Amino acid sequence: MLFPVGIVGFRGYSGVEAVRILSKHPDCEPVLLEHRADAGEDAKLLRKSGVRRAPSTAESVKAEGLKAVLLATPPEVSMDLAPKFLEAGAIVIDLSGAFRLQTGDRYKRWYKEEHTAPGLFSEAVYGLPEYTREQVRGARLISNPGCYPTAANLAIRPLVAAGIVDLQAGIICDAKSGVSGAGRKASLKTSFCEVTENFSAYSILNHRHVPEVLQVSGIEEAQFSFTAQLIPIDRGILETIYFRMAQPVSSAEILAIYEKQYAEEPFVRLYQSPHVPDLHAVCRTNFCDIGVVADPATGRCVVVSAIDNLVKGAAGQAIQNLNLALGLSETAGLR
Amino acid sequence: MLFPVGIVGFRGYSGVEAVRILSKHPDCEPVLLEHRADAGEDAKLLRKSGVRRAPSTAESVKAEGLKAVLLATPPEVSMDLAPKFLEAGAIVIDLSGAFRLQTGDRYKRWYKEEHTAPGLFSEAVYGLPEYTREQVRGARLISNPGCYPTAANLAIRPLVAAGIVDLQAGIICDAKSGVSGAGRKASLKTSFCEVTENFSAYSILNHRHVPEVLQVSGIEEAQFSFTAQLIPIDRGILETIYFRMAQPVSSAEILAIYEKQYAEEPFVRLYQSPHVPDLHAVCRTNFCDIGVVADPATGRCVVVSAIDNLVKGAAGQAIQNLNLALGLSETAGLR
Amino acid sequence: MLFPVGIVGFRGYSGVEAVRILSKHPDCEPVLLEHRADAGEDAKLLRKSGVRRAPSTAESVKAEGLKAVLLATPPEVSMDLAPKFLEAGAIVIDLSGAFRLQTGDRYKRWYKEEHTAPGLFSEAVYGLPEYTREQVRGARLISNPGCYPTAANLAIRPLVAAGIVDLQAGIICDAKSGVSGAGRKASLKTSFCEVTENFSAYSILNHRHVPEVLQVSGIEEAQFSFTAQLIPIDRGILETIYFRMAQPVSSAEILAIYEKQYAEEPFVRLYQSPHVPDLHAVCRTNFCDIGVVADPATGRCVVVSAIDNLVKGAAGQAIQNLNLALGLSETAGLR
Amino acid sequence: MLFPVGIVGFRGYSGVEAVRILSKHPDCEPVLLEHRADAGEDAKLLRKSGVRRAPSTAESVKAEGLKAVLLATPPEVSMDLAPKFLEAGAIVIDLSGAFRLQTGDRYKRWYKEEHTAPGLFSEAVYGLPEYTREQVRGARLISNPGCYPTAANLAIRPLVAAGIVDLQAGIICDAKSGVSGAGRKASLKTSFCEVTENFSAYSILNHRHVPEVLQVSGIEEAQFSFTAQLIPIDRGILETIYFRMAQPVSSAEILAIYEKQYAEEPFVRLYQSPHVPDLHAVCRTNFCDIGVVADPATGRCVVVSAIDNLVKGAAGQAIQNLNLALGLSETAGLR
Repeated sequence: MLFPVGIVGFRGYSGVEAVRILSKHPDCEPVLLEHRADAGEDAKLLRKSGVRRAPSTAESVKAEGLKAVLLATPPEVSMDLAPKFLEAGAIVIDLSGAFRLQTGDRYKRWYKEEHTAPGLFSEAVYGLPEYTREQVRGARLISNPGCYPTAANLAIRPLVAAGIVDLQAGIICDAKSGVSGAGRKASLKTSFCEVTENFSAYSILNHRHVPEVLQVSGIEEAQFSFTAQLIPIDRGILETIYFRMAQPVSSAEILAIYEKQYAEEPFVRLYQSPHVPDLHAVCRTNFCDIGVVADPATGRCVVVSAIDNLVKGAAGQAIQNLNLALGLSETAGLR
Repeated sequence: MLFPVGIVGFRGYSGVEAVRILSKHPDCEPVLLEHRADAGEDAKLLRKSGVRRAPSTAESVKAEGLKAVLLATPPEVSMDLAPKFLEAGAIVIDLSGAFRLQTGDRYKRWYKEEHTAPGLFSEAVYGLPEYTREQVRGARLISNPGCYPTAANLAIRPLVAAGIVDLQAGIICDAKSGVSGAGRKASLKTSFCEVTENFSAYSILNHRHVPEVLQVSGIEEAQFSFTAQLIPIDRGILETIYFRMAQPVSSAEILAIYEKQYAEEPFVRLYQSPHVPDLHAVCRTNFCDIGVVADPATGRCVVVSAIDNLVKGAAGQAIQNLNLALGLSETAGLR
Repeated sequence: MLFPVGIVGFRGYSGVEAVRILSKHPDCEPVLLEHRADAGEDAKLLRKSGVRRAPSTAESVKAEGLKAVLLATPPEVSMDLAPKFLEAGAIVIDLSGAFRLQTGDRYKRWYKEEHTAPGLFSEAVYGLPEYTREQVRGARLISNPGCYPTAANLAIRPLVAAGIVDLQAGIICDAKSGVSGAGRKASLKTSFCEVTENFSAYSILNHRHVPEVLQVSGIEEAQFSFTAQLIPIDRGILETIYFRMAQPVSSAEILAIYEKQYAEEPFVRLYQSPHVPDLHAVCRTNFCDIGVVADPATGRCVVVSAIDNLVKGAAGQAIQNLNLALGLSETAGLR
Repeated sequence: MLFPVGIVGFRGYSGVEAVRILSKHPDCEPVLLEHRADAGEDAKLLRKSGVRRAPSTAESVKAEGLKAVLLATPPEVSMDLAPKFLEAGAIVIDLSGAFRLQTGDRYKRWYKEEHTAPGLFSEAVYGLPEYTREQVRGARLISNPGCYPTAANLAIRPLVAAGIVDLQAGIICDAKSGVSGAGRKASLKTSFCEVTENFSAYSILNHRHVPEVLQVSGIEEAQFSFTAQLIPIDRGILETIYFRMAQPVSSAEILAIYEKQYAEEPFVRLYQSPHVPDLHAVCRTNFCDIGVVADPATGRCVVVSAIDNLVKGAAGQAIQNLNLALGLSETAGLR
């Protein structure tokens, strides 16, 4: 007997990935919740797949017996649907930025619009299992982290906590992402000829994912320089993180900090210095891979953190959170 | 009457680009100098092109009346050929790293091998025209800058000179390059399936181009963190440069520093903040494009510098140097 | 003294290419004609380029003294503008399909809409210089060929004319194009994530470029099977053409037919069999490259024809036609 | 209790894919058999994976209790290892071309070298389950089909058998493959800069996969024109197949032929005409997808067949054959 799990936004890149994972999940099965914007794409295959479909309504939650619903939708849609699905009794896992920032003011500053469901901030749990596992286990509303912050926080937080970062000099996070991070909608900026054989920076010092890093890693905006950049590939995020060491230590000592933090984590992997991960190592997996090159003689340190933006950065982490919330094995469907 | 200019290594990516530029140059024409490693690639066209060919020897310099020779060769070949061609009376422009580092010791540290022509260091001129134009005009041996250092120095040097960089916190240069920068030889690391849909860092804190930045911009190794990274594209370098400002100034003030420095430069272009260049803006041109985003409130600053690694980063800059050395218009063949 | 040449649609991929070629043309200079759909893209460079601009009106033709105007526009815009610019005294070179098909009925069948300027069919000259050079020289309205038909006709027509194709068995043209052929507008079908790591066929047996091949090569629709396919690259068309030989001849004999036809052509190149062109050989050139593999023992023959869809397939051929119409050297600006 | 299955050549692209599938297989587990050419790639992860390793010897077959061995090796290695592993009691599934062609003469003609184990031809079973399922069930030596022939035969054979192909006019198969089809070894032809933004044809009318199509579909070489072409992508094969119909039928009638043939097949999918598959539909799956556009009025027909060259074209089909040979569910590990 499989738990039926609803997915709104199942035609977007994160949604497709969530359906893919749930279709192979040992304990869950996907139910596609049709939203009005979903119309118009016909199946081309002669015989249809057997995936269940239902309207994207609170009634469907009850009629289909949905234990949980994943919202792979823009923030404004999530703010509209989350209260309805919660009231209908489903656990809601929201992949948008709607419930990540803790207050309506902060949301307004970074998302440039009013928050329409601020009453839900108090019960929204930020679902980064490596740090909030216990809260996720009992949560009804889980806010799935952004893709860039997931790679950044897993690399930065243990080092800040260990006190080895010179915060005066600041932390630089030079982030690069595949194009699927921009979502699946027609746009000149993400059209093939504009992206291929190109590389471009955007939202310099101004990206809406920045406050998630500040919240989780406990640093100030003035101490953190973040640039997002577009790689001409489909998926994957690689972040090159630079800082000066408050106390010069070796690569091995930094790896020891990570090992202590992540020894039991199923989805964090570490590299022997000077090896660092590339995107092929993590694509189509739920891993976050981390490598370090430190130069104690000069105090310079470089950390490379890599994830698949659609898996650990979106749908995979959402299923990881789903597993925790439903009391299943945390790695079910993700290995 | 065109000046005949020899090219050794004309089948490599920089060499091909040099031949392409010289073939359209109003005052020069290419002469392909066959080196022993060049054998084995037959022309496929039914009728051959009319480009002149000769052996890669000192005799050819005289027989063909070569005013200058471009060495698009590995350092060990350049160290072998440069003395011979100089003695035969040609101006030599070397695109390898053989003569960039000023001393044999420094060469040995970064290139991991002995220098075999140290006697030439004293007359080698580092050919970054924006800063060494006058020396290039009278030079016999011109050392063409590395691709990464060209983009880095044009962005960094004016700001360091103006005193607005907090060198205590250091300068970060996160550099990304197309695959042609690795040269044209079979290698698993640059094979299509390893590179496509991937992104990877290499030579972290340890790249042989680092000392060129230190030499030109006048900073210490401890103050400079450099990472090279491979973009799955053919050509182009984009560098994202981070520093804290010693004295907080606005983007406009930083652009004013660049404008003052580069007002008369034909191959440096500046962007209105917060616009920054992408690679499409510079590919197949000899431009170095620079954009800035500064946040005076927090002291953070990000500069983006972009070039085509095969043009301003190699063959284009070599022709720019050639033009200067031959007394031609500096922009001939490069517009 | 340069001829000013207007370009409408200068932000599209063909238009950009036309501006690029005209900017380096020894006898012409571009004038950008602003059409209402062109609004909204601001220049990012601190200093503007010096290219002239004017409204896209008949008045501009007179005020700017335009000898000719290139229409890099959709057919419906071309049908609107061509009569006005002709009346204002300019030679018009239309890059759309508006005037290629000789009758309004044929246009309606393939373009699925009414032709709104059928009176111009009688004076429109199909500008494939290898076959219509003399007509182009005296033309006022030149219809620039489609990209696919240019590569197809240059390969097919001489062989059909020589009688060596078994038309009973038919001619197969399996065509592949880079994405820029679809034009520069946001569309899910040409968005990066849909195209990268993909390959897809479209308009099978039904592409609107088919009738141009029938018209020029003199074959029947029933004898010609054409499939268009999307390669995940920016630019280039490669067509693999198959037929059975009516009289079995060797590759060399087929090449001799091509050589006889194209001996004096500046933009057609032939390959030694079994070599055939790839896209790197033609991209960013105005060449059409052709190679042949024939097997006389079995009567099978394969021809490969390659062009750059934006150059010989669009803007380059348009400038070639412009040169002819203005009485300039046919290759001016194209070498 | 899992069946241990050996893999030789586990670092090649097909080998990696086989290990990936077997690692998730419900009834099997991979054992990496180290061959001498495998040396030199160190693991970079701090903690090693738990996959078993053993030398590539007959002794390992016994010591590890291997039920079967997959040879993801070049033909000359397969000819050397297959007899040894068979004698040691393992079922051998060979992914090379060593045992596909039935006679040493045929092998010599197409592979240009002597066959060194011709005694095994008599018991080698060609493992295309859709046509040889029963023989595979009892086989000791299974010859896994080539990637191109798998896509070609599944599309062509039912139509030839149904008599609707005009064999006089012949069948054209225009095949395109991702670069991983060329294997994982450094080569200039498959280096990134040579492949990106390119498209090229090779082995025209002369590809070594041709005889597999003749053998399975029962057509003559003179009736079959095959061109292989390289797409700048990692994986996937799309074949566009053209023929004239002996008796003009509709797309629906052709689909009915396919449906009848493949109604019970788990890994063949059909498309509603005029839809045809693209590579995204099949990549990372074991499906062969087929679509049809027929024009009964003129007798022309186009079929598009798509697979992932590393899955249905190599490792996936090998596991499908393995499942059959071991008496497991045919789809185990492949859904």
